[in-house]
Amino acid sequence: MTEYDTHIAVRPDVDGFATDLVDGWRVGGGINGGYQLAVVGNALGRVVAEKPDPISLSAYYLSAAVAGPATVRPRVVREGGTTATLAADLWQGDDHRLTALATYGDLADLSDDVRTTASPPDLPPLEDCVPNTMAPRELREVAPLLDRFDLRFDPRHVGWALGQPSGNGELQGWFRLVDDREPDPISLLTVVDALPPVTFDLGLMGWAPTVELTVHVRARPEPGWLQVRHATRNVAGGMFEEDCEVWDSVGRLVAQSRQLARLPRD
Amino acid sequence: MTEYDTHIAVRPDVDGFATDLVDGWRVGGGINGGYQLAVVGNALGRVVAEKPDPISLSAYYLSAAVAGPATVRPRVVREGGTTATLAADLWQGDDHRLTALATYGDLADLSDDVRTTASPPDLPPLEDCVPNTMAPRELREVAPLLDRFDLRFDPRHVGWALGQPSGNGELQGWFRLVDDREPDPISLLTVVDALPPVTFDLGLMGWAPTVELTVHVRARPEPGWLQVRHATRNVAGGMFEEDCEVWDSVGRLVAQSRQLARLPRD
Repeated sequence: MTEYDTHIAVRPDVDGFATDLVDGWRVGGGINGGYQLAVVGNALGRVVAEKPDPISLSAYYLSAAVAGPATVRPRVVREGGTTATLAADLWQGDDHRLTALATYGDLADLSDDVRTTASPPDLPPLEDCVPNTMAPRELREVAPLLDRFDLRFDPRHVGWALGQPSGNGELQGWFRLVDDREPDPISLLTVVDALPPVTFDLGLMGWAPTVELTVHVRARPEPGWLQVRHATRNVAGGMFEEDCEVWDSVGRLVAQSRQLARLPRD
Repeated sequence: MTEYDTHIAVRPDVDGFATDLVDGWRVGGGINGGYQLAVVGNALGRVVAEKPDPISLSAYYLSAAVAGPATVRPRVVREGGTTATLAADLWQGDDHRLTALATYGDLADLSDDVRTTASPPDLPPLEDCVPNTMAPRELREVAPLLDRFDLRFDPRHVGWALGQPSGNGELQGWFRLVDDREPDPISLLTVVDALPPVTFDLGLMGWAPTVELTVHVRARPEPGWLQVRHATRNVAGGMFEEDCEVWDSVGRLVAQSRQLARLPRD
């Protein structure tokens, strides 16, 4: 069992599913939201037979999660046809961490047609990108999650680490979980929220609390490295949207997400 | 009171809020999803004092709504700080139409900074655009909602009406509710889902059922005409994402939405 599978494991209990959030996914004062999504998504995949895959998942974050025991309380909103609409809440004791709605189904049932007009990120080759192992020590200390995956940043978008952000509001790179754990629909829920806030590229260092994040999983990813692209186009009113695209090793756009987050306080 | 305000009106009752869905918002066999969002959003704006505005709203559609009585059942998930997280369900009798999560607050409380890098649609002047009153009769008969607003299509994206879609997967135009009803945060919930499916521009005529729609309201719109742009970049697996931007009369990007919808069956 890979590290990642151990970290997202859930056990059925009286309230739904029990899990343990791992400190290794901490970012600053809280546990990474994409990791929480995968834990919740993993539990929801066990709720309805023959509907194991997230197709759409919307999470509203309520309070910062911490390392330790947590409970996922799932609810079937509607079952029938090729998909099920589900709800879930993540609790730690009396603290409500997130509430979510989701559509689950079997991605293998979707038709094979692909008429995608979006283009993959124009990433330099893996060996020309900047590995997260080169992230500043102070960043790695506040963000141990950087040790959970191999992330190779596009060199055009790492200026923030040197105090020279590009100002474009973009971050992109190659992504692979440790232990060569291959991507699957559940791990994509983590991938869409694993990179630093795209606002780093605007010179706004600091963690950006997510208000809402919706991810659409559009296909089961093929094994291998993923290409991930984050961008923001509307930084205003103390908030920003962050769009993410995840492309698999055969060039399929397998996941799209958008989140609304609060700007870090300067 | 304008037609629109009459149509989205809700009355407190034992279950939450009672309303009447109006046939004038029908599209094909169902009532328009954006109109349903505004009815639900209008009810949620009355749940928490000093938090009247939708900031983020995610709806999962469960069954086709019909004209007639409906009930919005709201629930406070978390209250505190500058925002509240709310949930709502829309019912017609025993039929569950949609379930939603939302973040509400007061848009007037947001900071004034605007660092938007997105560009407004490059729309021709109003007088050079194609009014929805010119939509084919057969379309207007299946979509009476076209009489609820003044919509001026960019001529570059109306080829579908003549059997010559551009193939770009884009639709944009000027938008204004009838009675010169000025835009507000609630009406933006309708605007993001009022245009025909962007798949019309790909030659895929037919209504596209929405699975999930999330809208972020980023600012209170100024009075006047809105500019609306729809685009899709990932038509695959029998589904597509539809992104929408709404710009107000002073060039502010006031709302962004993304929906996941099923392709119409050919």
